Amino acid sequence: MTETVLYDYWRSSASYRVRIALNLVGEAYRSVPVDLLAAAHRGPEHLARNPQGLVPVLDIDGERLTQSLAIVEYLAETRAVSGFLPSDPIGRQRVRALSYAVAMDIHPVCNLGVVAHVMAAAEDGEAARRGWMQKFIGDGLAALERMLEHPATGAFCHGDRPTMADICLVPQVYNARRWEVDLSDCPRIVAIDARCAEIDAFARAHPDRVKP
Amino acid sequence: MTETVLYDYWRSSASYRVRIALNLVGEAYRSVPVDLLAAAHRGPEHLARNPQGLVPVLDIDGERLTQSLAIVEYLAETRAVSGFLPSDPIGRQRVRALSYAVAMDIHPVCNLGVVAHVMAAAEDGEAARRGWMQKFIGDGLAALERMLEHPATGAFCHGDRPTMADICLVPQVYNARRWEVDLSDCPRIVAIDARCAEIDAFARAHPDRVKP
Repeated sequence: MTETVLYDYWRSSASYRVRIALNLVGEAYRSVPVDLLAAAHRGPEHLARNPQGLVPVLDIDGERLTQSLAIVEYLAETRAVSGFLPSDPIGRQRVRALSYAVAMDIHPVCNLGVVAHVMAAAEDGEAARRGWMQKFIGDGLAALERMLEHPATGAFCHGDRPTMADICLVPQVYNARRWEVDLSDCPRIVAIDARCAEIDAFARAHPDRVKP
Repeated sequence: MTETVLYDYWRSSASYRVRIALNLVGEAYRSVPVDLLAAAHRGPEHLARNPQGLVPVLDIDGERLTQSLAIVEYLAETRAVSGFLPSDPIGRQRVRALSYAVAMDIHPVCNLGVVAHVMAAAEDGEAARRGWMQKFIGDGLAALERMLEHPATGAFCHGDRPTMADICLVPQVYNARRWEVDLSDCPRIVAIDARCAEIDAFARAHPDRVKP
């Protein structure tokens, strides 16, 4: 049995997703912090783990895996208890679509490297960052709220147990609050996020709980 | 039997992926253009189809689906011939990771709406757009090239038949060429793209072939 190791950064949304997923399937892991603010992700040691220079990287089952959602899908396939994806193809399609509405359409645009580039081009970098975050997180979550106006939405994004969509949503809501995005028009999102916060697997993965 | 309808834009990478995937599984479809340049995607008719206001939207099997990669996964699950994902969990994890290295880490950052925002903030909008595209597509494909330095890479991104990773790669290479990104350090990517171009399902999906 090989040790499961997560190369992690406490505030990374992608790492946060994988922490939630590992907790939900009850997979014990050791965390190795990669300090993005000190540019450790661009050092030779981390680039040898992942040529993209991104976190998370997960060592599990004797393999080295990258890309948070590909890891969540792997856990869904190999850990039968996960429930990360529903059993019907249309349900799985919907959960993936909701997941990607966050993980493709919001998160990459607000990633550290992208926003650094936006700040560098602006006269007032801090204001540019704040405006950028509020626009793209705000617009993206407003669209997601409308996608959740759907009969398959339950206590969680899809039905009454957490799926991959909730694993994507919670770190994005954490970021929305960090940048003071107005969520008053997103009551479904706020309610689902609150329900997730009550689950130990989500609570233990929160950045404040894993901050070095 | 319901008609399969693709709400499409000829130059959208996400639409291009779904065209390739539909062609590869031999699914006949009718194309309905949504003119992004005329902002048709933000009109009430398209927002009723997809609250995100994005293309593609696919009507298939009596359902309405959004999010290109969730559609590709749906076709992989429901059309046994697809081969879009390998049969082993580690292989599937790798194909998804390669796919997301394009579909999450390059494409959203270079999306029309995001780049319009970058241009609006810049003194010389055209130069800002060009610099932005070259940086993010260039850096992203360079990282992907290193991910392809892997024993599981074959004639295509994973093994010797096209998978979801190739479906993501080809539209991104089209965009790289459009923005004159230097691909001289990406010989694997260039070779795989050339092999895909020889396949009718890819060739028929090319923007130049479907441009209204």
